[in-house]
Amino acid sequence: MKKPAWVIDKERARRAAGQATVWLFGLHAVRDALANPRRQRLRLIATKNAADRLADAIAAAGIVPEIADARRFPAPLDPGSVHQGAALEVRPLDWGPLETLCAPGPTPATVVLLDRVTDPHNAGAVLRSAEVFGARAVIAPERHAAPETGALAKAASGALERQPYLRVRNLAQAMEALRGMGYALLGLDGGAEATLEAALAEAGPERPVGLVLGAEGAGLRAGTQAHCDRLVRIAAAGGFGSLNVSNAAAVALHAAARR
Amino acid sequence: MKKPAWVIDKERARRAAGQATVWLFGLHAVRDALANPRRQRLRLIATKNAADRLADAIAAAGIVPEIADARRFPAPLDPGSVHQGAALEVRPLDWGPLETLCAPGPTPATVVLLDRVTDPHNAGAVLRSAEVFGARAVIAPERHAAPETGALAKAASGALERQPYLRVRNLAQAMEALRGMGYALLGLDGGAEATLEAALAEAGPERPVGLVLGAEGAGLRAGTQAHCDRLVRIAAAGGFGSLNVSNAAAVALHAAARR
Repeated sequence: MKKPAWVIDKERARRAAGQATVWLFGLHAVRDALANPRRQRLRLIATKNAADRLADAIAAAGIVPEIADARRFPAPLDPGSVHQGAALEVRPLDWGPLETLCAPGPTPATVVLLDRVTDPHNAGAVLRSAEVFGARAVIAPERHAAPETGALAKAASGALERQPYLRVRNLAQAMEALRGMGYALLGLDGGAEATLEAALAEAGPERPVGLVLGAEGAGLRAGTQAHCDRLVRIAAAGGFGSLNVSNAAAVALHAAARR
Repeated sequence: MKKPAWVIDKERARRAAGQATVWLFGLHAVRDALANPRRQRLRLIATKNAADRLADAIAAAGIVPEIADARRFPAPLDPGSVHQGAALEVRPLDWGPLETLCAPGPTPATVVLLDRVTDPHNAGAVLRSAEVFGARAVIAPERHAAPETGALAKAASGALERQPYLRVRNLAQAMEALRGMGYALLGLDGGAEATLEAALAEAGPERPVGLVLGAEGAGLRAGTQAHCDRLVRIAAAGGFGSLNVSNAAAVALHAAARR
């Protein structure tokens, strides 16, 4: 029997995703990725000077750099990327299935879900805060989310190598999977009646919590809101203005870690 | 008697500061500045399209735009600035003296002090969080701080027009003035023993609090640390990684607003 077209498309997309590579850049991000034994590294392009500065990390990783001229740097980076003479082609990290990563354990589990947060600086800062406050994972859809680029790695300041950033086919399905595992799903919305702090107190220290954040301006989409247990606002926030999404995530993660 | 050279230099610097202007750009930032009656506006350059979109704000502000071609936009902006066809030359806002702005009142006062936070995205996000959590002011030195540029205005998302951003000649002197007004000065430092939360509980809801934050990497300078009452770390933060400075400020402001 011939495979239907949609199955062929899906298999092709999966193969493409498996082959996707990312160029990390900048001395800090490249050094972190070289030091990460779980990171699959494909190609390192470096100036003589950058290779000297990364010499220990390059030797430990057992990779041979392609030495390049800074004025004709051949890595396919966005213009304006501050690569500092070092670019490393890698595969995205494989964090394993959501069910394993987010399984409730002896310590209270917290995860962050990002609904169409496409700005790499914001997503990177969220990864950084998630690591600091011990969140199990940051979960975002495969599409309409910040890709694991060098800009994100730079904003994450090393956290991209250590903090699970799980890309899922469908955010709503991931939310339902978490709900099935006992998670309380709290959607952050500046206009909500209930406060995050009250909802966390209600959840208590045992129940795992998912913090759901939307993009700036647009906020949580109606479809995502419908999969939340409740919508909550950060308490003590005045009537004027709104928080940057990474700042809202940091405040929520701090509150969740202290419940 | 001839004035000594240092007096002449000082007078010249003061005149220059009085004449300093800033170019704000982008539809959002320009609209906010046009709507702010306290904002001194000097020159508006706009494409025909942008002028149409800002028509109400332009009429209300009573300013005549210079219509320009998008391809030869004459405002002196940094390359890559997403001006959306609108740039407004303004004077920095005058927030008055620190003693008035930060005078303790019926509600617990909180101020943020930034020690060499030069990145406009970080400073803008701090202004935004300061407004949301009701801080009296964000205080930074005149030099070695993020200037009130379009990039900062954009990151502040309107807060630059409403949230006092006070530039002082000398941060240590400002800290001593705040101490004289009864402020507890808490310096954020990831390696500190005491926690911010414990220090805020000790300060109680009455005592005004100054949250002192340093630049990423460098942290608080020794000279600034010496003017803090104590150094504190954000509780619940794990062993790995560190917070982005604007995220640390948001967490600290939230905690201070809820003491």
